[in-house]
Amino acid sequence: MDVLRTGVSVLGCTLPEKDDHSPAGARDIADRLIACLPGMLTYWYHYSHSGQRIHVETDDDSIGGHFLHLLHRRQPPASWVRAMHTSLILYAEHEFNASTFTARVIAGTGSDMYSCITGAIGALRGPKHGGANEVALEIQQRYSTPDEAEADIRERVARKEVIIGFGHPVYTIADPRNQVIKAVARRLAEEAGDMRLFNIAERVESVMAEVKRMFPNLDWFSAVSYHLMGVPTAMFTPLFVMARTTGWAAHVIEQRADGKIIRPSANYIGPEPRKFVPIDQRK
Amino acid sequence: MDVLRTGVSVLGCTLPEKDDHSPAGARDIADRLIACLPGMLTYWYHYSHSGQRIHVETDDDSIGGHFLHLLHRRQPPASWVRAMHTSLILYAEHEFNASTFTARVIAGTGSDMYSCITGAIGALRGPKHGGANEVALEIQQRYSTPDEAEADIRERVARKEVIIGFGHPVYTIADPRNQVIKAVARRLAEEAGDMRLFNIAERVESVMAEVKRMFPNLDWFSAVSYHLMGVPTAMFTPLFVMARTTGWAAHVIEQRADGKIIRPSANYIGPEPRKFVPIDQRK
Repeated sequence: MDVLRTGVSVLGCTLPEKDDHSPAGARDIADRLIACLPGMLTYWYHYSHSGQRIHVETDDDSIGGHFLHLLHRRQPPASWVRAMHTSLILYAEHEFNASTFTARVIAGTGSDMYSCITGAIGALRGPKHGGANEVALEIQQRYSTPDEAEADIRERVARKEVIIGFGHPVYTIADPRNQVIKAVARRLAEEAGDMRLFNIAERVESVMAEVKRMFPNLDWFSAVSYHLMGVPTAMFTPLFVMARTTGWAAHVIEQRADGKIIRPSANYIGPEPRKFVPIDQRK
Repeated sequence: MDVLRTGVSVLGCTLPEKDDHSPAGARDIADRLIACLPGMLTYWYHYSHSGQRIHVETDDDSIGGHFLHLLHRRQPPASWVRAMHTSLILYAEHEFNASTFTARVIAGTGSDMYSCITGAIGALRGPKHGGANEVALEIQQRYSTPDEAEADIRERVARKEVIIGFGHPVYTIADPRNQVIKAVARRLAEEAGDMRLFNIAERVESVMAEVKRMFPNLDWFSAVSYHLMGVPTAMFTPLFVMARTTGWAAHVIEQRADGKIIRPSANYIGPEPRKFVPIDQRK
């Protein structure tokens, strides 16, 4: 996340937005950022993990394909590319979440697109927002069978432990994105001939519905899907950035049309004014 | 601003905050950032303007002195250091302005201090927030005498033109910081034996009070002061960053104590649901 936040900020220095802030220019910057993010992430990944400096151009015609190609350094299967498209579309936009709101507050001051996206990445990084989606996989990987998962989750829920990957601040009955990403995860698992992780995730879904009336959010079966496509866990939140940059950019363009600065006022709740004591008379 | 935003983000990669996010650790990062910002700015300035790579260490015991030293590449007069201290203190904090609010929204997700400050710099950059303080000087420099300024400002006000440097979203009668920075500007002007810019700024102040009942905000006489200390106009907003980083950091620490995510909800005001038309039947 730090690499993507910095990479976007650097592009803001080297290829700055024009002062007119036209919607067409803003869309061009969004397109460029979305095209560059997979290269930033995978170049850093390969260089920092194995010292290899990769070429960041491919002839893939989609971000999902381009990302998987750069990550695995070979043409990905068509089914993976399609799965990645579905996931990126599901993550692309989701009204006034904290990172989108950050982008809007920055846009409200009249700042440039790069500043807005840089700030949004910083917000998405937080564990109460996007930064915890890798924990979903960690939970699923704790278990070797669905039965083991069920027993342990029942115990944890009894201890009032929060299970990451369930519930959502906006949805109350179900996350409508879940059935789409669950079908993706199932297809990838069948193709891989390895249903273990999917079955565990699905069992935890039933247990949580039964004992807590809670539903999985988009992160739960995204974790299964990404893992089956060989995406390192630390890249789950950066993938969220690649998807959500589209939504952030759209909100920035909309906020600019509004033209208002977002600036709440503060209510002082501290002590009443106190008598001034010259510094040499203070105890 | 792009350089400072990127420099802070880079430090977040190379010297990341510890996961415990302790207030003491947060204060250390704030101290480091405030200490590094003058070096980032002046190194970039000298390198990009004259190709010189400067050393960014001095033995000055304050940020104001260190900044002026690196900028002019010689020990600054004590009166300038004191003037800079006053200005930085006045700019240090100002409740829930847009950049502070940005820092708080990012902090609310549980993200790190660097992400919060990076986002805040992006917001301060906007011309509706900090990004317009250099315009105050441009206005003052348009004129060669107070009389010329008075005549032109009267005409502009009659044409309903907005005069940058006047009015404030929070203050209604006066900006209490003005009398402090005005005294600083007067002293620097007297010392320099050059009252021209100060006299012009003061005349515009009287005219605006008379015809619009408007008062100068902190930017107005800061512009005079910075100019008299040889600060390039493009550095006015970056100086604001150096000062305000203290306030941003304090707000981040306070927001963390609260522990809540800031996430407004959106009201959909678009069209009602429409009938689905398969793509091959659309016109």
